[in-house]
Amino acid sequence: MIYISLLLSLCFTFKTCISTTVIVCHDCERNVNEFQPTWESLDSRKLPQWYDDAKFGIFLHWGVYSVPGFGSEWFWNRLANNAPAYVQYFKSNYPPNFTYQDFARDFTAEFYEPGEWAELFKQSGARYVVLTSKHHEGYTLWPSEFSFSWNSKDVGPHKDLLGDLANAIRSKTNLKFGVYHSLYEWFNPMYQADRAASFSKNNFITRKILPEMIELVEKYKPEVIWSDGDWEAPDTYWQSTQFLAWLYNESPVKDTVVVNDRWGKNCSCRHGDFYNCKDHYDPGTLQKHKWESATTVYKESWGHVKNTKLQDYRTPWELISLIVRTVSCGGNVLLNVGPTKEGTIDPIFQERLLQIGEWLSVNGEAIYETRPWTHQNDSIGDTWYTHKPGVIYATTLKWPDNNVLKLGHVNKSLFETGQVVITLLGYPRKLKWVFENHTLSINFPERNLVSNDWAWSVKITNGK
Amino acid sequence: MIYISLLLSLCFTFKTCISTTVIVCHDCERNVNEFQPTWESLDSRKLPQWYDDAKFGIFLHWGVYSVPGFGSEWFWNRLANNAPAYVQYFKSNYPPNFTYQDFARDFTAEFYEPGEWAELFKQSGARYVVLTSKHHEGYTLWPSEFSFSWNSKDVGPHKDLLGDLANAIRSKTNLKFGVYHSLYEWFNPMYQADRAASFSKNNFITRKILPEMIELVEKYKPEVIWSDGDWEAPDTYWQSTQFLAWLYNESPVKDTVVVNDRWGKNCSCRHGDFYNCKDHYDPGTLQKHKWESATTVYKESWGHVKNTKLQDYRTPWELISLIVRTVSCGGNVLLNVGPTKEGTIDPIFQERLLQIGEWLSVNGEAIYETRPWTHQNDSIGDTWYTHKPGVIYATTLKWPDNNVLKLGHVNKSLFETGQVVITLLGYPRKLKWVFENHTLSINFPERNLVSNDWAWSVKITNGK
Amino acid sequence: MIYISLLLSLCFTFKTCISTTVIVCHDCERNVNEFQPTWESLDSRKLPQWYDDAKFGIFLHWGVYSVPGFGSEWFWNRLANNAPAYVQYFKSNYPPNFTYQDFARDFTAEFYEPGEWAELFKQSGARYVVLTSKHHEGYTLWPSEFSFSWNSKDVGPHKDLLGDLANAIRSKTNLKFGVYHSLYEWFNPMYQADRAASFSKNNFITRKILPEMIELVEKYKPEVIWSDGDWEAPDTYWQSTQFLAWLYNESPVKDTVVVNDRWGKNCSCRHGDFYNCKDHYDPGTLQKHKWESATTVYKESWGHVKNTKLQDYRTPWELISLIVRTVSCGGNVLLNVGPTKEGTIDPIFQERLLQIGEWLSVNGEAIYETRPWTHQNDSIGDTWYTHKPGVIYATTLKWPDNNVLKLGHVNKSLFETGQVVITLLGYPRKLKWVFENHTLSINFPERNLVSNDWAWSVKITNGK
Amino acid sequence: MIYISLLLSLCFTFKTCISTTVIVCHDCERNVNEFQPTWESLDSRKLPQWYDDAKFGIFLHWGVYSVPGFGSEWFWNRLANNAPAYVQYFKSNYPPNFTYQDFARDFTAEFYEPGEWAELFKQSGARYVVLTSKHHEGYTLWPSEFSFSWNSKDVGPHKDLLGDLANAIRSKTNLKFGVYHSLYEWFNPMYQADRAASFSKNNFITRKILPEMIELVEKYKPEVIWSDGDWEAPDTYWQSTQFLAWLYNESPVKDTVVVNDRWGKNCSCRHGDFYNCKDHYDPGTLQKHKWESATTVYKESWGHVKNTKLQDYRTPWELISLIVRTVSCGGNVLLNVGPTKEGTIDPIFQERLLQIGEWLSVNGEAIYETRPWTHQNDSIGDTWYTHKPGVIYATTLKWPDNNVLKLGHVNKSLFETGQVVITLLGYPRKLKWVFENHTLSINFPERNLVSNDWAWSVKITNGK
Repeated sequence: MIYISLLLSLCFTFKTCISTTVIVCHDCERNVNEFQPTWESLDSRKLPQWYDDAKFGIFLHWGVYSVPGFGSEWFWNRLANNAPAYVQYFKSNYPPNFTYQDFARDFTAEFYEPGEWAELFKQSGARYVVLTSKHHEGYTLWPSEFSFSWNSKDVGPHKDLLGDLANAIRSKTNLKFGVYHSLYEWFNPMYQADRAASFSKNNFITRKILPEMIELVEKYKPEVIWSDGDWEAPDTYWQSTQFLAWLYNESPVKDTVVVNDRWGKNCSCRHGDFYNCKDHYDPGTLQKHKWESATTVYKESWGHVKNTKLQDYRTPWELISLIVRTVSCGGNVLLNVGPTKEGTIDPIFQERLLQIGEWLSVNGEAIYETRPWTHQNDSIGDTWYTHKPGVIYATTLKWPDNNVLKLGHVNKSLFETGQVVITLLGYPRKLKWVFENHTLSINFPERNLVSNDWAWSVKITNGK
Repeated sequence: MIYISLLLSLCFTFKTCISTTVIVCHDCERNVNEFQPTWESLDSRKLPQWYDDAKFGIFLHWGVYSVPGFGSEWFWNRLANNAPAYVQYFKSNYPPNFTYQDFARDFTAEFYEPGEWAELFKQSGARYVVLTSKHHEGYTLWPSEFSFSWNSKDVGPHKDLLGDLANAIRSKTNLKFGVYHSLYEWFNPMYQADRAASFSKNNFITRKILPEMIELVEKYKPEVIWSDGDWEAPDTYWQSTQFLAWLYNESPVKDTVVVNDRWGKNCSCRHGDFYNCKDHYDPGTLQKHKWESATTVYKESWGHVKNTKLQDYRTPWELISLIVRTVSCGGNVLLNVGPTKEGTIDPIFQERLLQIGEWLSVNGEAIYETRPWTHQNDSIGDTWYTHKPGVIYATTLKWPDNNVLKLGHVNKSLFETGQVVITLLGYPRKLKWVFENHTLSINFPERNLVSNDWAWSVKITNGK
Repeated sequence: MIYISLLLSLCFTFKTCISTTVIVCHDCERNVNEFQPTWESLDSRKLPQWYDDAKFGIFLHWGVYSVPGFGSEWFWNRLANNAPAYVQYFKSNYPPNFTYQDFARDFTAEFYEPGEWAELFKQSGARYVVLTSKHHEGYTLWPSEFSFSWNSKDVGPHKDLLGDLANAIRSKTNLKFGVYHSLYEWFNPMYQADRAASFSKNNFITRKILPEMIELVEKYKPEVIWSDGDWEAPDTYWQSTQFLAWLYNESPVKDTVVVNDRWGKNCSCRHGDFYNCKDHYDPGTLQKHKWESATTVYKESWGHVKNTKLQDYRTPWELISLIVRTVSCGGNVLLNVGPTKEGTIDPIFQERLLQIGEWLSVNGEAIYETRPWTHQNDSIGDTWYTHKPGVIYATTLKWPDNNVLKLGHVNKSLFETGQVVITLLGYPRKLKWVFENHTLSINFPERNLVSNDWAWSVKITNGK
Repeated sequence: MIYISLLLSLCFTFKTCISTTVIVCHDCERNVNEFQPTWESLDSRKLPQWYDDAKFGIFLHWGVYSVPGFGSEWFWNRLANNAPAYVQYFKSNYPPNFTYQDFARDFTAEFYEPGEWAELFKQSGARYVVLTSKHHEGYTLWPSEFSFSWNSKDVGPHKDLLGDLANAIRSKTNLKFGVYHSLYEWFNPMYQADRAASFSKNNFITRKILPEMIELVEKYKPEVIWSDGDWEAPDTYWQSTQFLAWLYNESPVKDTVVVNDRWGKNCSCRHGDFYNCKDHYDPGTLQKHKWESATTVYKESWGHVKNTKLQDYRTPWELISLIVRTVSCGGNVLLNVGPTKEGTIDPIFQERLLQIGEWLSVNGEAIYETRPWTHQNDSIGDTWYTHKPGVIYATTLKWPDNNVLKLGHVNKSLFETGQVVITLLGYPRKLKWVFENHTLSINFPERNLVSNDWAWSVKITNGK
């Protein structure tokens, strides 16, 4: 099929034009599987399985905001809106007429070792990585044709940060590589002009955003497009359905790519391969559509912050709990760490990722490739279920009192049809158990004999 | 009249389009004086008189190249092409991975006082000022909607350098304000992509250049557009005739603006309100079309250079000679000085401009509003003519031997038809003269009694 | 007593002098307790008790080396000696003629909150803090009269970093405040000249070091002087005994100050209030003289390093083990963390300090104010002893197998003379025990019921 | 002779000493010509002839103040004293806690070519050059042993600016090389402490100033020491007579060095080889003691200023007049230009120096090696005299009316004793003259035939 789009521009005088796009589906019978630029068609797409199996990914917020490293990655916006702490910090440390863009030269990334990052992410147990290709500041982490002098090759690191990470991830690991991309740019005057015209103008989207997204996909072949910054305009302004139709039909990643749900006002939680709904989403119940909890190790910011206190970092237990709970409810976890302007990942972030990796290296069987079970969490204690064909996994977030785990949701019928075997992941021997009064009681070993901390996964199989 | 331009785009797939523009002249009878987007039509325009009367303007090259202040304003280009002196300078003084764009933050302009500049230019006797709105580097000296983060408001001075000068010139003087503008941008990847496609693509011109030129004209109303950087592509790529038709028909400066001749390969010396032909053009003979000699006080560069030697600056005599010679041959002189990154104009430049101003304050009558005479330079000595109705001006660039100026081109008939009066500008008494052997001999006063140096203008009128 | 020192200088010509100092003890009978400037006299001083009771202190290495944050605080020295990694880093990131001193301007300390540091150190359980007042680079962290333009007030932070910390520590906590001070300065030309003269000249020590040490003591009243950089010259060059006699006799901290053992070649492990012997000293046996193990959380450097890997940080268990082991052997632990150039303490350092603090909040009774016992470590397992009058503490670094701790060094006689009570710190009930076959077996509770990790202290008292 | 100085220090306690110096003249008979450290003795020294012959020198003010390039070289002082313009400039362009010392890193001197400077100075006709080795800021332009990290080798240019110029001057020209040196340093805390003690303490002078001056002399062998910054303390504090006795008796430049008169309160215009009296000294009458007019091309500052206006530069005529007038009155002119932070000399300064050089290349005979005549300036017009054996030079600062120079002070007797010959320097033929009515009238040629501008020297010899 070739689809023909006719952009008709009626120009009164040389500079004032009204444009409209007419899309003609030519030879449409030839390929009935392709997607139309409508939500109805796009939403019918089947989720690529790798994503549902992956469960855990790493999110990276990295940009010019990493230079001040103050407050959050919304530094520029907060400053422009006179948030007192930001204004005070800025006035205290920079000349009166310094601008946010002046920070870019100090984004040095001299210690950036994407190979070591890739190794770290692999050891964390993550199965995919999503890097901010461009945040709301507009600065691109790759040498975009459409962001001259405001990208990481031209000013600051003088490197293709994105390309280097994509290559490292792909050459050193089996992880998938994806990109975050902000549709809007707070202070891009082209965007501001379109917005001032209530989005009746489309210079920004046609001249800047669509070309750059296509460049991004064609050049780096990301398997996740994590869209953001959509909320001020309708999806029609962003031409989201047209872009997604191209992405699903024709792009080099058409078979494997997954996208989130931020494609225009009212799209969130309604369209996309998976739903983020809102930041730090943690519903605690099974969701009807594939979803992802995007959240952070450091609670106050996605981008790197320099002056942090330990109590504002989530503990390993909190993070592992989130993974356990989210996977039970059908979600993935995309866990964010903010690299520094120098290109390093803070040791505290390394520690958290490696703690998760240590836990997953033992208990990953209860996480990866699983699907939600009949029940999500048990009626007794703080235990969460997943399953695979013939197997139930129950992960408790608390070491059971007296070393006996009690479960109230495991149906008696399981025990009637076969030889039930119960083990503890990471412990070599079968566990003793008893089922009575609608309750399964499982005898745990001495805690001292189990190497893991934080959470423990029981595997229940019918031995038949 | 409304002219309708129909941009027809045929898109195979979402991202590959072929565009063509159909321009329809609607209601053309209504205004027969308007210009069509053809050179034939555009070249028929009458030159606005102010420009022919003005004779002398100031050219300013100011941009990011003023930061290194080394070699010339082509610094970036030379460096990219491995010119040894540039490479050596750059490697000796900057970190290995520094880029040209990193210079922008040091373009501080903290001493920029446009009011004082305006005052200086006025005292120099100039009648117009032309500032580089954007040189080949692409950095705009105004906060362009189409050059986000690569303009003087976002990075460096944090000021609208262009707007501030325009305002100062207009509020403090009667000088005209104009802009230099480079069509091409050496390292803009959009331009590079168009060029790599042999200019069959037009992203750069349609998305960047035309919108920015229109913005520039509408916002700052320049009365000179001094185009440059045109030579790699034909005028059809640049859509020059379309732009000029708009400029002449509809822009806010349609009645007063003048443009030069750099609008595409093969345009130079052939199209435009005035011709620059080439840099430092100095033909020495009368030209058929209005022209301008654009040249520099500092011989080696248009942009500011820090490490200069006095011998590379033109002397006041050389500059005044150029003005005298050029005006005799029908041209204007656009004399360049390069401001510093701090926003100052070197004292040596001030001195040259004030020396010219001092000379013009006495001899300007022989320059401004004059037209070329029958002869340009005399057969004897180094004397150049201009005229006004009823008056001939002869300016000698050398004090005459024995205080007697001899002229071989003043026709005897002049002396037959009336009471010839000859004076020396700046000297209060009439001069004695004698005409014999086809030669007019004029008795100059003692040199010590004449305040001016450099050149002396004789005014010959027929007293009738 | 007034002691009179007569500095006799015999000057041949104006500029070449030979100096000698004659010290006359005047009125010596009046105060027989004072110290003479001899090691014999100085070594006779009784250690101020607070230091022996304190056991655990925080060491801070902070200086211009925190700006590159590469390799270690010996950056300048390594670079000057062409260590390849340092040279490569430096050449890759800085202009060719950059110097180490140029770094100072980027030592910004904008996030320095000494009150928060003090709070953190208090929570860590430390009882004293030692800050590098000046490292081998010569840059002083206070506005020294003798280090004009090479101190933290003049260049970089523009603050009295040392004074601000001293004040915060004293106003917010009961911790003692001390200073590290380097005698030599690698690249101070005055020192280099003295050294080149085989220390027969003494310009550096008389003009720079002694005045600055006296200023430091008088202005900030540090209760620890942790001397360093002494090893190239004898103590006679450094005038160490003279300085210490002044410090012990007359300085404002004469009654409470403690000093280490680095006061000249051959002083280490031989003179001083306490001995550091060498960095990271960890003898594992009881020492005859009070000593201190000075070591780091990050294994590779004392100063802050930006590009670190988690595996190069000591684990909480390693750190707590070190404290337990050192205190048993009569030492203190001075544990180093390196603040950043921005004035922050990395979250991983915060975490380690708070982990130690958490442990000490339960087990500190077995550490603070204790003295070494008859035995240091037990013959069975990994258990270490301390004692107080009537109490023995045994701290095991490993949870005992089968929850039974066995001790082979607790003498039977203890159990014959009274009512022995054994408890576990942090656990409310008495423990059951049995003594047989020369072995004391103590029944631990379920591990799950004990909140602490890492190490467990048993308290053995004779109930009499 | 060996003179013995005995520095007796009586120290109460280790740190409080009272010092006194006893100087013993040993073997004094051996060399009766040597100088004692008293003004009486020092003032008896005969001025080295080279200085009296030289007449014209170049003064260079270069230092960290060249970085802001604002106001004057007193930038730091003015700022500290809250001079409004300085405060405003500083606050507008730098972060709130920036310090003056932070400027040093931007003192780049990347274009410093001492060989070209030397060539320029030679062409200016100067016979000596005086560079600020250290101004009141304390920053040394050589790598002083006594100014660690606050000198041009350690921070900023990373060069021995002084040594490089000394070498260039000596290898490329016959000019003498000298140094300016400030005794006081506004913000050196050692100096401030001495001053706070009403100069009863002498740490600063003994530890810093004397060692550094001796180093400077021994290392660079300057033939001028142009002392400054003396006025707050008496010469006894500065130990000036001791220093000068050493300089005249023993230093490597003892036979050729000359010093000015700024050696302590009340020394100005009273002691020294030549007197500066005050800045811009221009008495207009013959002085009893050799003197020097130290002044500037740019009227407002000695150090480089970035934002200057042409009218604040002295014209060539003003400068040549000053030389003519000063030499007639027995003085030298030391004319200052301020190099830039980049290491260049502004073209306007080059121009002025070359204009003077052009004039001296013709008229130098009336300047160099001359001595004052009986009369200094003539009673008629603006004409100034010098003489050599058998020759009188009369230099007129104004072209004579009607080309006839009239002189009223040339005694008739001159014309009675021989064959008087009068010439105009730079003009090949003898001039006609007549002496009547006590007035000598000299016929000048046509002005057009004389190449020089500004001033014209007549040479009057008695042909015998």
